Amino acid sequence: MTAANGIALGEIARHVGGTLHGDASRVITGVATLQSAGPTDITFLANPRYRKYLASTQAGAVILAANDLNECATAAVVTANPYAAYARATMLLYADRALPEPGIHASACVSADSRVHDSASIGAHCVIEAGAEIAAHVSIGPGCFIGKEAVIGEGSRISPNVTICHGARIGRRVLIHPGAVIGSDGFGLASDHGVWVKVLQLGGVSIGDDVEIGANTTIDRGALEDTVIEDGVKLDNQIQIAHNVRIGAHTAIAGCVGIAGSAHIGRRCTIGGGVGISGHLEIADDVHITGMSFVTKSIRQPGLYSSGIPADTNQQWHKNTVRFRQLDDMARRLKALEERLKREQENSEK
Amino acid sequence: MTAANGIALGEIARHVGGTLHGDASRVITGVATLQSAGPTDITFLANPRYRKYLASTQAGAVILAANDLNECATAAVVTANPYAAYARATMLLYADRALPEPGIHASACVSADSRVHDSASIGAHCVIEAGAEIAAHVSIGPGCFIGKEAVIGEGSRISPNVTICHGARIGRRVLIHPGAVIGSDGFGLASDHGVWVKVLQLGGVSIGDDVEIGANTTIDRGALEDTVIEDGVKLDNQIQIAHNVRIGAHTAIAGCVGIAGSAHIGRRCTIGGGVGISGHLEIADDVHITGMSFVTKSIRQPGLYSSGIPADTNQQWHKNTVRFRQLDDMARRLKALEERLKREQENSEK
Amino acid sequence: MTAANGIALGEIARHVGGTLHGDASRVITGVATLQSAGPTDITFLANPRYRKYLASTQAGAVILAANDLNECATAAVVTANPYAAYARATMLLYADRALPEPGIHASACVSADSRVHDSASIGAHCVIEAGAEIAAHVSIGPGCFIGKEAVIGEGSRISPNVTICHGARIGRRVLIHPGAVIGSDGFGLASDHGVWVKVLQLGGVSIGDDVEIGANTTIDRGALEDTVIEDGVKLDNQIQIAHNVRIGAHTAIAGCVGIAGSAHIGRRCTIGGGVGISGHLEIADDVHITGMSFVTKSIRQPGLYSSGIPADTNQQWHKNTVRFRQLDDMARRLKALEERLKREQENSEK
Repeated sequence: MTAANGIALGEIARHVGGTLHGDASRVITGVATLQSAGPTDITFLANPRYRKYLASTQAGAVILAANDLNECATAAVVTANPYAAYARATMLLYADRALPEPGIHASACVSADSRVHDSASIGAHCVIEAGAEIAAHVSIGPGCFIGKEAVIGEGSRISPNVTICHGARIGRRVLIHPGAVIGSDGFGLASDHGVWVKVLQLGGVSIGDDVEIGANTTIDRGALEDTVIEDGVKLDNQIQIAHNVRIGAHTAIAGCVGIAGSAHIGRRCTIGGGVGISGHLEIADDVHITGMSFVTKSIRQPGLYSSGIPADTNQQWHKNTVRFRQLDDMARRLKALEERLKREQENSEK
Repeated sequence: MTAANGIALGEIARHVGGTLHGDASRVITGVATLQSAGPTDITFLANPRYRKYLASTQAGAVILAANDLNECATAAVVTANPYAAYARATMLLYADRALPEPGIHASACVSADSRVHDSASIGAHCVIEAGAEIAAHVSIGPGCFIGKEAVIGEGSRISPNVTICHGARIGRRVLIHPGAVIGSDGFGLASDHGVWVKVLQLGGVSIGDDVEIGANTTIDRGALEDTVIEDGVKLDNQIQIAHNVRIGAHTAIAGCVGIAGSAHIGRRCTIGGGVGISGHLEIADDVHITGMSFVTKSIRQPGLYSSGIPADTNQQWHKNTVRFRQLDDMARRLKALEERLKREQENSEK
Repeated sequence: MTAANGIALGEIARHVGGTLHGDASRVITGVATLQSAGPTDITFLANPRYRKYLASTQAGAVILAANDLNECATAAVVTANPYAAYARATMLLYADRALPEPGIHASACVSADSRVHDSASIGAHCVIEAGAEIAAHVSIGPGCFIGKEAVIGEGSRISPNVTICHGARIGRRVLIHPGAVIGSDGFGLASDHGVWVKVLQLGGVSIGDDVEIGANTTIDRGALEDTVIEDGVKLDNQIQIAHNVRIGAHTAIAGCVGIAGSAHIGRRCTIGGGVGISGHLEIADDVHITGMSFVTKSIRQPGLYSSGIPADTNQQWHKNTVRFRQLDDMARRLKALEERLKREQENSEK
C-alpha cells in the first residue's frame, strides 16, 4: 500500500503490546491485506472469514490471536485484540505521514486579534477571525473558516473546506473531515399566526478530546446552552446533530444518522447508519441501535434495539405492505374468532 | 449567555407586544434558561415541563402566559404566545450582533461585471461572477461562490463556504448556513441502451423572502422550469430538494429530509426529520408529516400523516419483522378460518 | 429557457439519430416544455401524461415517438427513445455554454510539483498540491482543494468548493457538483477496552469515466484497498459511500442513499432515494431498489426490491404500528386457532 517508515518487527510488537514469534530485526515498511501483503508488509487476522488466507500469505508478519498461531506461515505478533493492535501498528508505521509544515500560508487571512501557536499549520485561503485560538501542533487545511473566538485544542487536525463557527470549542487531537460544519445555527422557530419567527441560537458547541467528525457532518450550536460531544466520540459522514444534543464519551455513530434537538445519548453507545433519533429523549449508556431504526422514546436499559424493515422482492413487499394497513383490522378479527370459539367451548361444556 | 445590548424591560415588553408586570426601567442584557438566568437576564416559560422552575428563578424577568403569572417570583411580560415573544426579544437584544462591516475584502474576486451594493459585505476569498447582483445590506461570509447572474436580495446573510450557482435568485432577508448548495444540477438522466445520457439542467432556482436554509442543505435547479421555495420557508440542515420541487410559503422542514423531483408541497406544512417524499406528487396545505415517514402518493387533505416504525428491543423486533414477511399469508389464513366458521354455523343452522 | 446556439433542425435530427418531418433549415435556439415552447424552441414528448399538449404546442419542433407523429401540429423528429434524443439535443444546443477560459487564476495556489495541462482551467482560490495531475480540458471551479498526487482525467468538470483528497483518481469526463468530498477517511475503528482506536485509512478511491457525482455527496477512501466507482455511474446529491464499496458500471443512485463499507453493487442497478445498504454484502447486476428500502442481505437475483412503508393518516398508522409490535403474538394465536379447529375436525371425524 502506501510507503511507510521502515520499522523493525520487534519494535512493532512492543508498540502494540504483542508477543513476537519470529525475527525481531525484520524491517516492515507497509501494511496490506493477508492476500496482497509482501515480505516487507505486516498484516492482521481479526475476522474468521479471512483465516483461509493465513497459511499462504506472503506477508512479512501477521498480527493475530493465539489460537491462529499454529496455522501461520510467517512471523506473528500474538495479541488478544488483533484489530486494535493492527490499528496501533498503522499509526506507528505512518506516524510522520502528511504532517504539514508549521506556519501560516501567505494567502490565509488571520486576524491580528487571534492567537495562532507557532507550531500550528494554517493552510491556503483559510480565514481565522478575531479572538480565535489555535493551539500547538494544530493543522488546518486550505479553505477552512474559523469564526470569532473559536478555540481549537492541541494536536487537532482540520481537513480542507471545514467551517467552524464563532465560539465553537474543539478539544485536543480532534480530527475533522472535509465539508463538516461545526456550530451552525440550531433550527429554532416560534410559530406566530402562521409565520415562523426565528429564535436566535445563542448557545455554543463543545467538542471533547479525541473526537472524529466525518465529511459533511453538521453539528449545530445550542439555543441557549451548549451542544456537547464528549471525549472519544466518533462520528461518520453526513450525520446531523441538532441543537442541545449531548453525546456521551466513546459513542460511535455511523453515516447518515439524524439526531433531533435536546436528545441525550449515553456513553459507549453504537448507532447504525441511517438511524433517526427524536428530540427531547434520553438513551442510556451501552445502548446499541441497528441501522435505519427510528428511536421515538427514551431507552433506559442497555441492549440492542431495532426497527428497520429489511427489503424483500417488490412483489412480496407489496402484498405484505397492503396487509400492514389492515393490521389493526386483522387483530380485531383474530380476537373475535378467539372469543367466539371460547364461547362455543363454554356452551358445549355447560 | 452571550452579552447583548442593554435594553429596558419596558421597551422589550412593547417590542414583543406583551403586558409588563414589574419595573419598566430594569435593564436587561441577556437571555438564559429559567434555571440559569440572573438578574439582568430575561427568560421565558412556554413548555409546561419547566413550570417547576418558575417560582425560584433568579431571572430579571420572565415572558409567560397569563395563567402562569401568579407563580412568577420576578417581573413578568405576559403574552398569549411566550415562545414567539421570546424569539422577538432575542432579536431586539442581539440586533447589532455580528454584522460585518460593509465593503469587499481585498482577497475576494469580484467580477467587474457584477453589481455589489455599497452597503453589502463580501468576505475573504469569495468569488462573485459576472452579472451577479448583490443588494443592499447583504453579507456574504468568507469562501462563498456566487455564480454568473445570481441575484441576492436585500438584507440576506450568506454564511461561509456556501455555493450559489449561476442564475439562482435569492430573496430578501434570506439566511443561508454554511456548506449549503443552491442551484446545483438536478439529477436528470435518459437511459439509452444501458447507458445514461445527461439531460442538461436548464431551469433555475427561486428562493423567496425570509427563507432560512440549513447547513449542507442542497437545492437543485430545475430541468427546464424553476425549482421554487416560497416566502418564509424554513429548511433545517442536510435536506435534499430535487429539481422542479415547489415548497409553499411558511412550510418548515426538519433535517435529513429528501424530496424527489417535481414534488409540490403546500403552504404551512411541517415535515419531520428523515422523511422521504417521492417525486411528481402533491401535498396539500397544512399537512404535517411525522419523522422518518415515506410519502409515496399525493396527500389531498390537511392533517397528520406517518409511517415510521418505532424502535423496539432487537429480540422483539426480530420476531415481529419475520412475521411481517408472512403478513399476507397470515391475512389469508385468518380469512380462511372466518369462512370456515361461517360455513359451520350456516350448516348447524340448517 | 436559457439562450442556446442557433442550430438548424436538420442538424439536430442527424445528431440525435432521428427522422425529420418538417423544414430542415428551421433554426432552433432553445429548449422548453410542450406548454411553454415557442417557434424557435425544440421540445419533446416522452411521458404519455403530456400528450394532451401535443396538438396545441407552439414549439418549432417536437422530438417524439412514431406513434405520436400524427397528432403533432408542428415539425417532428421521430425516434425510438425521445427522452434520450432530447438529452442529446440539449447537449448539442448548449455545447459551448459556460466553459471557462483555460489558465490558472492568479489567486489559486498550485504546487510547482503538480502538472496542470495548458488547456485546463483552475478557478480562483483553488489549491492544487504536489504531485497532482490535471489533464487536458479539465475545469476546476473556485475554492476547490485537490490533494497530493490526486489525478483528474481529461475533460472532467469540477464545480466550486469540491474537496478531492490525496491520491484520489478521477476518470475522464467526470462531473462533480459543489460541496462533494472524494477520498475522505473511511470510518475505521478498533474497539479496545471501551475506547476506539483509529484504523488509518491507507487505501485510495478510483472514479471511472463519465461518472457524475452530486452536491455534498461523500465518497470515502478505502481502508487498505480502493473504493471503486466504475464507468458511467451517476450519483445524486447527499449520498454517502463508505470505504471499499464498489459500484458497478452504469448504476444510478438517487439522493440521500447511504452505502456501508465493503458493499459491492452490480452494474446497471438503480437505487431509489433514501435507501440504506448494509456493509459486506453483494447486489447483483440489474437490481432495482425502490426508495427508503433497507438492504440487509445480499441480493443475488436481478429484479425489483422494496421495504419502505408508505405513509398513512397518523390515526391509522398509530393503530397499525401498535399491532406491528404484537405481530409475533398474533401469528402464534392464529396458529393456535388453526390447530384447535384441526383437532376438533379430526375428533368429529372419528
